[in-house]
This record gives sequence, structure tokens and C-alpha cells, in this order.
Amino acid sequence: MDHNGLFRNIVAKKSFLCVGLDPEIEKIPEFLHRYDDPVFEFNRRIIDATAGYAVAFKPNLAFYETLGYRGLISLESTISYIRENYPGIFIIADAKRGDIGNTSRMYAKAFFEKMQCDAVTVAPYMGEDSVVPFLSYQGKWVVLLALTSNKGADDFQYHYGDGMRLFEKVIRTSRNWGTIDNLMYVAGATRAEMLAGIREIVPDHFLLVPGVGAQGGSLREVARHGMNDRCGLLVNSSRGIIFADNSDKFDNVAGRKAMELQQEMAEYLAEAGLI
Amino acid sequence: MDHNGLFRNIVAKKSFLCVGLDPEIEKIPEFLHRYDDPVFEFNRRIIDATAGYAVAFKPNLAFYETLGYRGLISLESTISYIRENYPGIFIIADAKRGDIGNTSRMYAKAFFEKMQCDAVTVAPYMGEDSVVPFLSYQGKWVVLLALTSNKGADDFQYHYGDGMRLFEKVIRTSRNWGTIDNLMYVAGATRAEMLAGIREIVPDHFLLVPGVGAQGGSLREVARHGMNDRCGLLVNSSRGIIFADNSDKFDNVAGRKAMELQQEMAEYLAEAGLI
Repeated sequence: MDHNGLFRNIVAKKSFLCVGLDPEIEKIPEFLHRYDDPVFEFNRRIIDATAGYAVAFKPNLAFYETLGYRGLISLESTISYIRENYPGIFIIADAKRGDIGNTSRMYAKAFFEKMQCDAVTVAPYMGEDSVVPFLSYQGKWVVLLALTSNKGADDFQYHYGDGMRLFEKVIRTSRNWGTIDNLMYVAGATRAEMLAGIREIVPDHFLLVPGVGAQGGSLREVARHGMNDRCGLLVNSSRGIIFADNSDKFDNVAGRKAMELQQEMAEYLAEAGLI
Repeated sequence: MDHNGLFRNIVAKKSFLCVGLDPEIEKIPEFLHRYDDPVFEFNRRIIDATAGYAVAFKPNLAFYETLGYRGLISLESTISYIRENYPGIFIIADAKRGDIGNTSRMYAKAFFEKMQCDAVTVAPYMGEDSVVPFLSYQGKWVVLLALTSNKGADDFQYHYGDGMRLFEKVIRTSRNWGTIDNLMYVAGATRAEMLAGIREIVPDHFLLVPGVGAQGGSLREVARHGMNDRCGLLVNSSRGIIFADNSDKFDNVAGRKAMELQQEMAEYLAEAGLI
């Protein structure tokens, strides 16, 4: 899928919502634990309840790896389920990988060939040869960490030199490693005012924005500072949707939370004249 | 294991060698492919051939994840095999993880509880709350990326501001997050002359040094610039040992390569008066 394809899906669904599939086993409703694969059963219900309001799903690998190889089976089942039932939806493996060239090639193979994801999040610390192996796959994307939503982002991402902060240097240096059709950036919603500055460096790239909801970021601020003429935003919510309720109606509540975000997104898309 | 424990093992084996278990499936000798789990069979033979010369093994997760959940089964079998047969050896999960706090906690659980590794490599980009969840496990270690051995290290790790380069800032900022008993740093052998500068910032921390062998780093230079009074070094070799030969005698050749490195290491340990 290229950036126009993403935009078409956003217009069709009046949504730029990405739902984070982070199925922390201790938080999964009790009744699902009687199934062979509670994680998959949880995800399947979340997917069915939210797919109408979302353009992307983002499983975070940590929540699967923590369960050992069985967690990877749950993840592979989840991705197959999305592919079969909601073929147009964009799947981001939130893995934050990055290693020397020959090793990043193995990770690219893992996420793009073995798991059939559309995109993978990559950490920039090791530089160009750690990122480009992911960019050699036709139609697949790198989502490069730039400015993250957590407190620790202050520690190194603002390191200032050569007239710019590290996250700005990451964006400036990397923007030509790929194109607007295979490279986007993570830019946290908890620092929405920074999105305007990021937009000056990469006006046309998509941004994946975590931190709305549980982490406290404002969707209105994100849209105000980050939206471009192809929307250019995927806004993620994980815990605020999937763990909004833990009764046997959790999926209904998750669907309602996703719908609320979608409706707010539709407003901002309309205000921007994109729908 | 604390840093004195590591040092005792180094003295006992006259070696500070870490063997990288990166079993690229295309490079595994042909005859192993008739087994159910060729990756484990490969690793098992490498482990038996090299364990006498090494104080640590370092499986890189990419080479297992690229095989899907079956790769994780191979990895779990490999770790169990080491634990049962070579109980004193230090096991480093080379995973280069790092995410927001609640997610890093899941990765910590994956590598320390589920997989029973002693250490995990962590990428510093997301700062303190992405690293500290790994430091809360008694006897377990974080190996934080500082200066890596690849070409792309130039892109961001040298970003200069506040009188220091990024990798120096990473070390200065993080050195008190843990102690010399649970925190070490990656410092690439391809930049051995930088090790002296790193030693000024962290005289007592262990350094994990990749890049000797296939990547071209010099063991003598690493020892000269990086060794401290507890050795303070784990030097990794992966491809130079495990893929030195691909006949059905590959394990003998791997053992010989490991022994050659161990003998050279013994010289430097003796020169430094540590054995």
C-alpha cells in the first residue's frame, strides 16, 4: 500500500485510527481464559468490534514475546484473521527493532515475509544500515522512531547540536532513505506542539502518533499541528480502547471507544476539507 | 551473576570470549537439515565445541524470529541446553529492545522469566523509563547500546552537543540507572580507539564488544584500550566462529577458531597481570 492508498482508506472510513493490539495477559477478561488461545480470542473480538472504525492495527511484539513461542502463535493467528476478514487494513508490527545490516535483514524477513505485516517500527540509534534493509520490500513500510510519547524521550531525543535536536536530526538524515510511500515517523501525541516543527521537515510523510488516551495526548492538538493534505496521520490508541472494560462485554465497550475516536477524527477531517 | 562472578569465570577459563549464536538458516551445513530442528542441532554442536573457550553465549533474536514461532522454540531449546550442560555460562539475549515503560516490562519478562537469559541488549533511544524495567531483576543485566560497530553508528551516535557526543551522553546519563553489577555497554571493536574515552566515563563497567572478526576489529586494540582490573570486557565473535566452515566438520573448525581467540585473550590477560 502506498500513501495514496492509506489516504483512500482514511477517507472511506472517515478515520485515521490505529488500534493497538497489546493483549496483556493479566488484563484479559476472565471468561476468555477457558479457551486454548485466550490472546487470540481477545484480539479477534477486539478486531471485529473496532475494524469498522480503524484503518490500522498495531500489535506490539512485547505482549506476545512475553508468552514465549505460544505468544508468537497467537500473533500469527491474529494477523491471519485480520488478513482474511479485513483485507484492506494496514498492519504495523510495533517491534522497535534495529541492528547491523545482516541482522536487520533477518528482522525484515520476520515481519514482512513470515508475518505478512505492512509496516514495522524501527529504532534509529544504529543508523542507515540498520534501517535500509526494511525499505527494500515493495509496498512495505518503515515507521522510524523520532519523538516518542514517553517521559524518557527527554533523555536523548532532545540532545542538541549542529542547530538541531536529535529527533530532528533523525528525521532530516533519514527522510531520503525512503520515500513518502515507504517511510513514516513516530511522533508522540504527548508533545503535540512539536508536530508543527516536524511538519516543517517532513510536510508529506505520514506520522504514527501514539500517546492519545492512556498517555494523555490530545487528539484535537495532534490534528491541528500534524494534519496535511493527505491527512498524514495515523493516531494510535491501545489501552484506552482494548482495556476500557473487562467484563464479558469488553468488545462492545472497545467498539464504542473506537467509534468515539473515529467520530472526533471525522470532524477534524471535515474541518480540513479532506472528506 | 555479579561482575565479580563474571571476572571469576574469565580467570577460570582464561577467556573473555562471547560466542554469537546467529544461526542463519541458509548458512547451516546441509546435513543438519534432515533433523526436525536444524537450528537447535547447529547450535548444540557449536555450543559443545566452543563452551570450553567461552564465558558467554549471545543468541541474536533476529535469526530466530525470522523463522516464526518455530524459531523461538529453537531458541528456547538452545537456552535450556546451555543451562543444563554449561550452567555457569552467561547468556545474553541480543534483542536491542526498548519501549515505553509498561512495554519494556513485558520484554524484561520475556527474556528474564520466560527465556531465563542473564542479560538483554537494550537500545537507549527512548530513555530511562524504557531501560529501568530491565534493571529491576536481581542478578540480571542490561547491555545498553552506546557505540555500535556498524557504519551507521556515524549517523547519530556522534551527534555532538553539550560538549559530548550522543554515545557519551548515553553512557554519562545512564551509568547511575544501574550498577556495575547489572549494567554494561556495547562498544564496537571497529572503533577500538574510542574505548579509552569510554573507559574514562565508566572505568569499572563491563563492555560487550562486537565487531572482532567478520567486521574487522582488532582484539589486541580492544584489550589495550578497554581492559580494566576486572578484565571488564566480553568480546563477541559470531560469523568468524560459527560459519568458519560449512562441512560436516563445522563444529571442529568452530572450536578451533574459538580456541585461537581464547589463546590470544589469555595472552592479554597475562600481560595485564589478571591471570
